[in-house]
Formats: sequence, structure tokens, C-alpha cells
Amino acid sequence: MSQSAKRIVLASRPVGEPKPSDFRLEEYTAPTPGEGQVLLRTIWLSLDPYMRGRMSDGPSYAAPVPIDGVMEGGTVSEVIASNNSGFAKGDIVLSRAGWQTHAISDGKGLAKIDPKLAPISTAVGVLGMPGMTAYTGLLDIGKPQAGETVVVAAASGAVGSAVGQIARIKGARAIGIAGGKDKCDYVKKELGFDDCLDHRDPDLAAKLKDACPKGIDVYFENVGGAVFDAVFPQLNAFARMPVCGLIAEYNNFGETSPKWGGKLMRAVLTKRLTIRGFIVSDFASRHGDFLRDMSGWFREGKIKHKEFVTEGLDSAPAAFMGLLKGANFGKQLVRVGPDKA
Amino acid sequence: MSQSAKRIVLASRPVGEPKPSDFRLEEYTAPTPGEGQVLLRTIWLSLDPYMRGRMSDGPSYAAPVPIDGVMEGGTVSEVIASNNSGFAKGDIVLSRAGWQTHAISDGKGLAKIDPKLAPISTAVGVLGMPGMTAYTGLLDIGKPQAGETVVVAAASGAVGSAVGQIARIKGARAIGIAGGKDKCDYVKKELGFDDCLDHRDPDLAAKLKDACPKGIDVYFENVGGAVFDAVFPQLNAFARMPVCGLIAEYNNFGETSPKWGGKLMRAVLTKRLTIRGFIVSDFASRHGDFLRDMSGWFREGKIKHKEFVTEGLDSAPAAFMGLLKGANFGKQLVRVGPDKA
Repeated sequence: MSQSAKRIVLASRPVGEPKPSDFRLEEYTAPTPGEGQVLLRTIWLSLDPYMRGRMSDGPSYAAPVPIDGVMEGGTVSEVIASNNSGFAKGDIVLSRAGWQTHAISDGKGLAKIDPKLAPISTAVGVLGMPGMTAYTGLLDIGKPQAGETVVVAAASGAVGSAVGQIARIKGARAIGIAGGKDKCDYVKKELGFDDCLDHRDPDLAAKLKDACPKGIDVYFENVGGAVFDAVFPQLNAFARMPVCGLIAEYNNFGETSPKWGGKLMRAVLTKRLTIRGFIVSDFASRHGDFLRDMSGWFREGKIKHKEFVTEGLDSAPAAFMGLLKGANFGKQLVRVGPDKA
Repeated sequence: MSQSAKRIVLASRPVGEPKPSDFRLEEYTAPTPGEGQVLLRTIWLSLDPYMRGRMSDGPSYAAPVPIDGVMEGGTVSEVIASNNSGFAKGDIVLSRAGWQTHAISDGKGLAKIDPKLAPISTAVGVLGMPGMTAYTGLLDIGKPQAGETVVVAAASGAVGSAVGQIARIKGARAIGIAGGKDKCDYVKKELGFDDCLDHRDPDLAAKLKDACPKGIDVYFENVGGAVFDAVFPQLNAFARMPVCGLIAEYNNFGETSPKWGGKLMRAVLTKRLTIRGFIVSDFASRHGDFLRDMSGWFREGKIKHKEFVTEGLDSAPAAFMGLLKGANFGKQLVRVGPDKA
């Protein structure tokens, strides 16, 4: 009954960009669930930019992963053995099992997923944490009004793609920023954004100005860095800036954008900007609204999504390092195990 | 019937600190009011930090004073001749007559002041724009909860003194920052703040940490510069920062605090801060609430105020230059004319 299992642990805290030696793959024997516990088999592992923060031990809203600890992450998992009356063998659950093939859980924090409602991978994507980050940040902080202009970077990614599509549903103009022509074409043609600009374009600032002739009312900030510098001067009075990530800064926080400085505060004052940081769990009370709206829009075809799948747990470190550089095209997932074991 | 009048105009746009030659005193003959107009005699001129912004022609929420134009400012004035059925000779009005002894008005924007309710000078102070800036910024953006810690700089000034006292009324702890022992003593003993620290103290950051053992929940930002640098690291998660002024930055906007940079945005994200710029007119709809509450608290003795009076219009430039350096102790007013002509 003992099963061989694999996990990826944090070997060392990265300085700047994570490198392969910051991760270590370990093989072990999957434990047997004790009283009240279940044994989970990972099907999908979600890779997300916030994980870079967990690798460092600087101040943050969450504790870091300890050295030699399993890397954290959301998963879609199957219950393969259960001593917990709340879960049956074969149940598909949303879990935070992390970067490993198997995990023990006492059932707390597990949420059952109905495979009939949507592909199970969407539970860590458009109908999960990234989708809800987009939904709450845009609607509860950004508050786009019909006719306003919403700009979002990483526009082909899990959060950005949902932000722009929800903005369109609410009658706003959606301008995306993404890396490269293929992503920009996808954002415009498939996702229906009004426009999408390449952040590698040396004329980004000028093109953004052209694409937003009435200025920018909402900038959904998930990137920082040079994109921020291009966007910030175009913000209108009373613009709102939900801040859920700064991926361009994660490897070198605060050092890449010395231009911000006091100019930022001057603009906050003269334009009466609202800048508000958030993480998705701050809006836990909105989860019901999110699921109702987002799954409805998803079924109606108003919200499209794209997945970028890497095969096998072993590939997770490379996929994660790629994610931080924008190598993914769509929601980054690791296929850890088959849908049916 | 012609009266000799004086006005102070903007002679040149200051670079850095304003200097006497940036102002010019002019003598002229007060005009005669035409059809529908009134002639006003200035009693009180309010001097406020925002005026530094009007002297420059950089981007802001309001147009600059033109070169050779009369310096802008709120006044308490007496109607000394009226061809407007809405106003009678002898009426006391709140006006934006600017830095001059006399002004013509068509009546628009004038608000009558009842001298029986409170000293008329409070209409440009604790019961006027500075008081309402404190009231709306603190209550509508800062939203202090009972037991939370509110920090405000320029704590003996027109806005800061009201911020701390309202915070106390709402059950929060109020920590002031002010320049020098006399001001700090006044803030603690007369205004009843829980503590007040001297911004000239080289150990300000450490003392602020001691004074705020549970961190800072609301920082009412009206100063910027070194005070901001001391406060910012002590902000708690979910702290709110209403931004109504950056007086330490006005002479050299954005250049004095290179330390902010990306660190600010990192903190916005990890602490889920809200930073929101505002000017008092954004909250015009709250004017009735403000007057009801503030005049009530004023009458009950819960809100104290202090005026710092300079005599004569000629003294306005020097008083204003002093205001930018914190030379005033209390709400800066210029006594332009007697209460009764």
C-alpha cells in the first residue's frame, strides 16, 4: 500500500532571480493517513507569482516557506484514501498541498470540486484564486464605470486576462499590456480587449498614450517596474490603482524603479489617486458573489481562459522561473498526475 | 466715495523657497460695485500651505495664480457696498477675495457668516476649510476605529490639531508630531493628544515607535519628507493614509525623499495599505455633516483651536514664508482690517 512520492523543497533563499539550485527534488514514501485524515494525490499544481515572495524571509503578509520545507501552492487533488467522513475516495478537492505528488490532510481547508460544472483545472485558475483576485480587485477597489479606461499588464495571464474581460462586461474599455506579438494578438482577438501593447516596445509610453486618449481611470497593478512608469503619468484624476502584485520587482524589490519616489506622492495628491494593496483573502466575504458571476460569465462564453501546462512535478522549478520572466502564455499549471489514477 | 486699497500680487514664480521679491504690494483705488455686485472689505485673510502650489505652474488640481495676479486666499470680509439684493451693507461673508484689502464680487461663492455662532475668524479655520479637511480626510478616508492609533504631523496647525482631536472624539489614540517643545506641550496639554513628538528630534523614528507600541493605523499625511520616512515603517497592515498635503515637499517636489521609491509600493502590497489623495472640495456633499458635528464639538469644548495672527496685509508675504517653515503656532491668519470699519 506504500506509494512512492515526490516533493520539491526550498533548498536556499534566492538572491535576485531564483536558480535551479534553490530547489531540491526529494523522493519519499507517501505516508498513510491517520485517524480523521485523507491522502491526496495531486492532479494539478498551480504556479503563481506570489510564490517568489514565499521564498524570501523579508516582511510580508504571509510566513515564508522554511528552508527544506515543501514549496507552497494551490492544487487540484484526488482523495485516494480517506479516514475522514467528510471525504470519500475519488473526491476531487481544491487544496494547498504544495509542490508534491501526495499530501496528507485533516480535511480543513479542502473544498470539493464538482467536475461536471467546469474543467477541474479552472478551480486554481479562472474560477479560483487568480479569477477572484481579478474580480475583487477590479470591482471592489478599481470600480470601473461604463466608458472608463482600464489598463492591466500581464494581460494574457491568469489574473490580467480576467481583469480585462470583466472590465468589458462592465462597459469599460480594456487596454492590455503583454510580452510579444502572439500574446497581444490573443488578448485583442480572443479575449476581446480594445487594444493590447507590447511591454517590450521601446515606445510603450507613447503608444499607451495613444491607446488611452481619455487617460486611464483604473490601473490594475500586478507588474510594477517599467510598465508602471509608462502607465503612471497617464492616470486621470480620481484614478484607482488596486495593487495585487509587482512581478517585475519580486527579484529585486524596490530597487528597479528609483524614478517613482516623491513623484508618486505628488501625483497621489494632485490627482487624488487611490492606491490600495490587497490580497484575495481580504475579500473572502465576496467569494459567493465571485463564483456566481464568474461561473455564469464562463458558461455564457463571456470569460475565456487559457492554460499553459508543464508536464510532471520535476518541471515545476523551471516552469516557475519561466513564469517570473513571462515565458508562460496563459495560466501556468503543472500536470502532476492524470485526471484518473 | 473712492477708497484707497492694497493688494499683493505674484511678481515671479519661486524656485524652491519663495522670497520677498516673488511678491509685490500694489496700491490702487478700490473699484465701485456695478449692477448686481458688492464691494467687500477684508477683515481676515487665511494663509494656507496650498498657496505654495498656486505660485507654481506645474500640473495640479487648480490653475496657478497668473504672474501679476492677486494671490489667492480665503477671507472673512464685510460687505461695505451692495448692489446685490442677496447681500446687505454690514453682512459678514466667507469669500475668496485673496490677498487684498478690498474686492468686488457678484455674490457667487459668498457665504454669509453669523457672528453670533462663533468668532468670525473660525470660518477660515476650525469651522472652515482646514477643519473640514481634517474632518473628511480623517473620517471618510482614515476611518479610525476605537482603540486604533492615529498619527498626524503639523499637529499644532489648523488641520493637524483638528485631526487629533476628532480622532480622540472617535475613541482612537492620537499621536501628534510638531516642531519644538512649546508646540508639543500645547498639543499634549491643551489639545489632549496622547503624545506629541518633536520632528526636529534626531531620534524621531525610535520615539515614534515607542509612542505607537501597537503600530499606526491611520497616518494623516500633510507633511511628507522626513516625517513620512519615520512614520511609514510603523504603519500596520490595512493602515489608511489620507494625503491632503506634503508641505515638506512643496519647495522641491519629489526630490527630498528619494528613499521612498519602490519600498513604498512594496509596503502598499504586503501591508494592503490604502493611500488616497484628496482635496476638501471632493467632499462637498459632507459640508452639512461637518458643520453640524464640528460646531457642536466646538461649542461643547471638545475641539479647541489656536490662531496665529499677523497684523496688516503688508505682512502676508513674510507670514506665508514663515508658514512654509513652521514659524506659525496655530492657524495662520492675517488681520487685514478691523471687525468694524
